Amino acid sequence: MKVLVVGATGTIGKLVVKELAPRHEVIEASKTNGKFKVDITNEQSIRDLFSQVGKVDAIISVAGNVHFGLVKEMTAAQFNIGLQDKLLGQINLALIGQHFLNDGGSITLTSGIVSHDPIPYGSNVTVVNAAVDAYAVGAAIELERGIRINSVSPSVLQESWEAYGPFFAGFDPVPGAKVALAFRKSVEGRQTGQNYRVW
Amino acid sequence: MKVLVVGATGTIGKLVVKELAPRHEVIEASKTNGKFKVDITNEQSIRDLFSQVGKVDAIISVAGNVHFGLVKEMTAAQFNIGLQDKLLGQINLALIGQHFLNDGGSITLTSGIVSHDPIPYGSNVTVVNAAVDAYAVGAAIELERGIRINSVSPSVLQESWEAYGPFFAGFDPVPGAKVALAFRKSVEGRQTGQNYRVW
Repeated sequence: MKVLVVGATGTIGKLVVKELAPRHEVIEASKTNGKFKVDITNEQSIRDLFSQVGKVDAIISVAGNVHFGLVKEMTAAQFNIGLQDKLLGQINLALIGQHFLNDGGSITLTSGIVSHDPIPYGSNVTVVNAAVDAYAVGAAIELERGIRINSVSPSVLQESWEAYGPFFAGFDPVPGAKVALAFRKSVEGRQTGQNYRVW
Repeated sequence: MKVLVVGATGTIGKLVVKELAPRHEVIEASKTNGKFKVDITNEQSIRDLFSQVGKVDAIISVAGNVHFGLVKEMTAAQFNIGLQDKLLGQINLALIGQHFLNDGGSITLTSGIVSHDPIPYGSNVTVVNAAVDAYAVGAAIELERGIRINSVSPSVLQESWEAYGPFFAGFDPVPGAKVALAFRKSVEGRQTGQNYRVW
C-alpha cells in the first residue's frame, strides 16, 4: 500500500514508519523536517501535499500540538491552541484527505490516554484527545467507497518517559513499538470507527 | 443558592429554570431573549454578565451551536463552528465563571448522546459533545475551593422530537423534565467530574 505518514519525524512517527516500511511504500511528511512539508492547520498546505504525493491507500496522522496549563489561569485563546492544532488540524487532514484516498483506504488519527485519565495541567489534552477519538466514531458511519477511519490512543511512551514522566505520576509507560502496531492494525485491518487504546 | 442559567430561554433551559426556581434564586441569561444578555463566544460579554450578576453558587450552561453537515462536503471552517461555539463557548464560560463562583460552587455544561451514538450529518456534534464531557472530567481534578464541574448529556428531548426526530432514527426521546433533574443533581449534589447521561 501507499501510506502517507504526517508527523513522520516525531517520536511516534518514526516508530510507525519503521513498522510499516518493510511492507509498504511509506511517504513521510512533517511540519519542518520531512521530505514533504505540511502544516495541518493550513488547508492549502494540505492540498499542496496531496498534489505532490497523489492518491494514497492510507493516511496516518501523528501530528498536532496541545496547550499545557492550569485551569485557574487558562484563557479561551490558550485552550483554542489544542482545538485548532491537534484536533482541527487532524480533522482537516481527514476532510481533505478522504478525497485523495483510493477505495477501501484508511485514515488513522492520534489521540491519547489523557482523554480518560486526566492529569494536572492537562485539561486541554483531555478534551482534544477525547474529541479526536470521537471524530473517528462520528465520521466512520459516513465515509464512502469503503474508506475507514480509526484513532490510536497511546499512553506515554517509554521513549518519552524521561521528558514527560514527571507529569504522569503512576502511569505505566508503553513501548513505542506496541503503539506502532496499533497503527498497523488500523491500516492493514478492516475495522472502522475504532479507538485503539495502547495503555 | 444563586444559580446562573445561560441559555435559559431554550428548550432545555426553560425546563431547568422550572426545576430549580422553587428552591433557588435563578438568574436567567441568554444570547438574545433573556433578562441578561450574553454571548459565550465572547470573553468580554461573559465578563460583562458577571459584573452585572456578581458572585453565584452555580453556573449552568445550556447554550451553544454546532454544525450539521456531511463529512464528504465539510470544510474545516464549518467544523470549527461547533468547536468555537458549543465547545469553546461553554469552556470560556467555565474558565471565566470559576472566578465568580462562591466556595463549593458548581459548573454544569451540556453535551449530548451523539457523543457515543453517531448520526449522519452529526460528526461535528459527536466531537463537540464528547469534548464537553471530557472537559468536565479534565477540569474537575484541578478546580479549587471545592468548586465542582459536571456535564449533562441528554438524548433527544420528547419536546424536540417533532423537529429533530427524523435525524434520530431509532432513538428513544426522553422527557425534558428528566433532563432537568440531572442539572439539579449537579447543582445540589456534591459530585464532580461526572457526565450525567439521560439517554
